[in-house]
Amino acid sequence: MIGVEEAAARLRKAERVLILSHQFPDGDTLGCASALCRGLRRMGKRAAIRCSDQIGPKYDFLFRGLPDDEFEPDLVAAVDIADEKLLGEPLESEWGGKIDLCIDHHPSNTLYAAETCLNPKAAATCEIIFDLLRELKAEITPDIAAPLYTGITTDTGCFKYINVTPRTYRIAADLVETGIDAPTINREMFDTKSRARLDMERRVLDSIGYDCGGRVAVIVISRQMVRESGAREDDLDGLATIPRGIEGVIVGVTLREKEDGAWKVSLRAHDPANASEICEKFGGGGHKGAAGCTLNLPLAEAKEQMLRAVREYLKPRL
Amino acid sequence: MIGVEEAAARLRKAERVLILSHQFPDGDTLGCASALCRGLRRMGKRAAIRCSDQIGPKYDFLFRGLPDDEFEPDLVAAVDIADEKLLGEPLESEWGGKIDLCIDHHPSNTLYAAETCLNPKAAATCEIIFDLLRELKAEITPDIAAPLYTGITTDTGCFKYINVTPRTYRIAADLVETGIDAPTINREMFDTKSRARLDMERRVLDSIGYDCGGRVAVIVISRQMVRESGAREDDLDGLATIPRGIEGVIVGVTLREKEDGAWKVSLRAHDPANASEICEKFGGGGHKGAAGCTLNLPLAEAKEQMLRAVREYLKPRL
Repeated sequence: MIGVEEAAARLRKAERVLILSHQFPDGDTLGCASALCRGLRRMGKRAAIRCSDQIGPKYDFLFRGLPDDEFEPDLVAAVDIADEKLLGEPLESEWGGKIDLCIDHHPSNTLYAAETCLNPKAAATCEIIFDLLRELKAEITPDIAAPLYTGITTDTGCFKYINVTPRTYRIAADLVETGIDAPTINREMFDTKSRARLDMERRVLDSIGYDCGGRVAVIVISRQMVRESGAREDDLDGLATIPRGIEGVIVGVTLREKEDGAWKVSLRAHDPANASEICEKFGGGGHKGAAGCTLNLPLAEAKEQMLRAVREYLKPRL
Repeated sequence: MIGVEEAAARLRKAERVLILSHQFPDGDTLGCASALCRGLRRMGKRAAIRCSDQIGPKYDFLFRGLPDDEFEPDLVAAVDIADEKLLGEPLESEWGGKIDLCIDHHPSNTLYAAETCLNPKAAATCEIIFDLLRELKAEITPDIAAPLYTGITTDTGCFKYINVTPRTYRIAADLVETGIDAPTINREMFDTKSRARLDMERRVLDSIGYDCGGRVAVIVISRQMVRESGAREDDLDGLATIPRGIEGVIVGVTLREKEDGAWKVSLRAHDPANASEICEKFGGGGHKGAAGCTLNLPLAEAKEQMLRAVREYLKPRL
């Protein structure tokens, strides 16, 4: 493992840097790639970005004014990639085992790269890229600040998650000071929903059931609902948090139908409930706040078994 | 108008400070009151908080460990109150014309107090209270930091709105550094919904209609929907932003039934549409991004007239 100073030294020596983002790219891996690419080019180096998956239109703005380039790299850098497998195909076949430098914030990083600059305290890898660009004495211009802000805001749910530190806010202050349009970035990242997503929300809200006098809420995500709404996997993100977010609810249950017809249960719990203890009864597990298990039963039975277990669990605790 | 130094000097001289919050209290006015009251008490002064309306359970935590006090004040301070009318009854009758010091960030402040410490650049009045407590050399302890953070996060939609400045982030950094549980505050403020609210969302999503190939989305909020869901006025906050937040939509239309049966139309628009220009055709108005008008017609006709106007407006512009 190396620090930011050493990582900067490696980049300073390189002339042609290829930057790799992870598959199913998100705001952080793409924000890192865009900001680092722009910073290196400004220093007179050649730099280009590669990703195994197509990048959604939501992130187009990160690559505006950043034409692609083709070259034989003298340094291959992976940004926000915890495991080489997450390069996905075709990048894994092409670059697996050949990553010179990995810059990441995941504590689970497998240290697959020749050198790894890891800071698990960073809320987003974009925080580390910010430090790196400062170390490289690259000016943080608005076109660099916008992707860095994008990575930070998406990895923190707009400064909402537990990973946010004082430093996260201070970096955001410096980025916003460059004059970027952070409100528009946040609106695009958080307040724009696809029609399919909204249709899934409608179907999920239609499915809500309550139990234990409103202490328990249950939603269902069936394959039919997904099919009929036309939702893609990323349209389903966060739906499982809906039940627990209801006033008075301490156990939120989401039943999602798997390809084989079994039901994957996601349990979210507040004090005094422990989601993991409930799921363990069905051979599952997880954490206090969030746990899961699988029930190979028809929906009505899966729901009833789950509710019976939750009722029994809550009875002595309320 | 006076600066933070002078406001601090006034407070330093006072011995018994009564702090007033505005009616329909929000996180900012209550956060200010809680933080200021705690700070002044820590300085050995007597301080108490008054509000015309009952404070919702959501804000209970702001007043934990802050027992009430009764005294004849030698200084009456209004926090986050732009106009004396916003004191509401009974406070307006009791303290109208007798406010010694107003601390506020609303540019529309009517300067009703004997002295006003106004900073319209502050995203929340809590930013000014933060400066004031610093000026007073009051230590920003976690029980003071939590209400200040609450005011800032609620008035900025969790750092999402256009009023956020670099200073907002820097103050948040200092507050979070005291060790407060900001993720829980944000979850309570933003991610907890009443059953009635969720039921309204379900009904509104059921009502969605599209026009102009998905460029226009329409939702309906009828009196029946409100009645059947049991929603209160604050459960309806922000529903009108749903249509414009849909991918591809440039004009979002919300039809809300008024008490007299007429339909209040809220239009939200993105470039190249101008909401105000469309509403002007019906005698309404507003801004480019958000405007309104009223149609005294049955729902089907009101919707059709509105859609016809939007279609005609968009035709030459797309």
